[in-house]
Amino acid sequence: MFPSAVQVVEVGPRDGFQMEVQFIPTVLKVEVIDLLTRAGLRKIEATSFVSPKVIPQMADAETVMAHIERAPEVCYTALVPNVKGAQRAVRAKAGSVRMVVCVSETYNRKNVGLSVRQSLENCREVISMSRCAGIGCEVIIALAFGCPLEGEIHEDAVIQLSGELGELGYTEIGVADSIGVANPRQVTRLMSRLRRSYPQVHFSAHFHNTRGLGLANVLGALEAGIDEFDSSLGGLGGCPVVPGATGNIATEDLVNCLEEMGIATGISIAGVTSATRKMQAFLGRSLESYVADAGSKKELFARIAHRTSSEVSQGGH
Amino acid sequence: MFPSAVQVVEVGPRDGFQMEVQFIPTVLKVEVIDLLTRAGLRKIEATSFVSPKVIPQMADAETVMAHIERAPEVCYTALVPNVKGAQRAVRAKAGSVRMVVCVSETYNRKNVGLSVRQSLENCREVISMSRCAGIGCEVIIALAFGCPLEGEIHEDAVIQLSGELGELGYTEIGVADSIGVANPRQVTRLMSRLRRSYPQVHFSAHFHNTRGLGLANVLGALEAGIDEFDSSLGGLGGCPVVPGATGNIATEDLVNCLEEMGIATGISIAGVTSATRKMQAFLGRSLESYVADAGSKKELFARIAHRTSSEVSQGGH
Repeated sequence: MFPSAVQVVEVGPRDGFQMEVQFIPTVLKVEVIDLLTRAGLRKIEATSFVSPKVIPQMADAETVMAHIERAPEVCYTALVPNVKGAQRAVRAKAGSVRMVVCVSETYNRKNVGLSVRQSLENCREVISMSRCAGIGCEVIIALAFGCPLEGEIHEDAVIQLSGELGELGYTEIGVADSIGVANPRQVTRLMSRLRRSYPQVHFSAHFHNTRGLGLANVLGALEAGIDEFDSSLGGLGGCPVVPGATGNIATEDLVNCLEEMGIATGISIAGVTSATRKMQAFLGRSLESYVADAGSKKELFARIAHRTSSEVSQGGH
Repeated sequence: MFPSAVQVVEVGPRDGFQMEVQFIPTVLKVEVIDLLTRAGLRKIEATSFVSPKVIPQMADAETVMAHIERAPEVCYTALVPNVKGAQRAVRAKAGSVRMVVCVSETYNRKNVGLSVRQSLENCREVISMSRCAGIGCEVIIALAFGCPLEGEIHEDAVIQLSGELGELGYTEIGVADSIGVANPRQVTRLMSRLRRSYPQVHFSAHFHNTRGLGLANVLGALEAGIDEFDSSLGGLGGCPVVPGATGNIATEDLVNCLEEMGIATGISIAGVTSATRKMQAFLGRSLESYVADAGSKKELFARIAHRTSSEVSQGGH
């Protein structure tokens, strides 16, 4: 059946922040990451070591990594585009690095100006470099369930790309529905096939809530035995190329979903929400977490118990 | 596995409209129901035959029923509180009537001023009356997954209440998460147990998206073989007693989810969205349907195919 525990990977400080036009002060970035550490997250995508010319929001990557409070049990990971970025990540003491490769040739060329082949070459260099440095190395397969330029992505293409990444030595592969077009049946089918085809690889999943299917797709992946999911505080993030595309699934909503199903995450919803509130106050807009708005079921029912017991005690007087 | 086809029941014109403070002009109500008929809905909860003093929004129930265009294959159903309401529904030529009973004693008393026992007596009268009149009769068990006053609802209470309703002759029972506290595992467990316990009863489900779990709960119910779901155009509706409670799952989002999973609904998303746009224009606020905002995956990929083919033809010149 479902896994009994799940690792929730917080990607807000990279994937979410990167989508914001306004520069988020370094001190706020650090504060948010520290709140997430205290909330019980065990893997946090803290920043990205890209060129500040390409993504000015990530220009303070080194400073962020230098100032966050580090809990020994937490892996602070960073996105890197190539071996140069990975070297910066190693110097900044990242616990692991994450590469991205699109399964869609058209989109990969448009997005990073490289063919999928060339991106795989980068992946080869980065994993060999991280092994020398003694840090972890993961890769995310983007647009695994559909592409805004190519449309349908054939399942076999994802299977094949995963096989090639496996041959390069990757044992941690994330599968991403970057534009929110996946459906639960498709997710169960692809993730099951991936796990069966490459039992030595640990697969994780990354869903967007663009069509409201984020948590339904998590359920589809749980059915396939997936036990690691990306999410973002308050649902921060989005997709720059697709109109109306909303962000990542919100960490609060994911944790509430899992915990209510009896799947342990070790994460405090209230802790995550305190980070979300900080970001809401800074951005001056409401973020897209249902649970941050409505409260968790646990909170709701605790208030009932409290009210009932105070009514009872009042009645006694 | 999953059912191959699902009946989507549109409850917006009753459940959704009822939550609006501003009176929705009768002509707009009729227009929206007609758009839903044309969109391919086969069961529409068109109105409620309650006292206009209690719910002024439904004061035009007879007029609405008299003016909608009726397609022969569509069941226009109406909510009724008692046999008096059912008699009005019969006179207005409703295809069926729907009763509601809360599994929570506390909430039932607070909501309608009756004990669950007294509500069951109403249910008995209404089903016997509808049989004489030759129309369908359904019942919805509200708060089946949790109550804003009692907190947790024991599964056994829902099983028992369903048994009693079955003994009264009900063969169509809806199970409602009226406040959005259900989780998919709970849904699969309860709905499976209900179907096993009462194989002669056809169970349907009604979910709210308060904690973002609406479609995940649909998936949980599909796992249990449920093939009928309530939803509301643009996610109209909500829960008056729970702060932050958002509405029903949006019909557009549900249809997109099901169709993408290869489960037939016979419903046009664009058709439903045209009704949602009418309501948005009248209410002057954006409704909560992801697919109405972002478009369906089918639309997105159709635009890609179109763009690609026009690029190709331009290249040929």
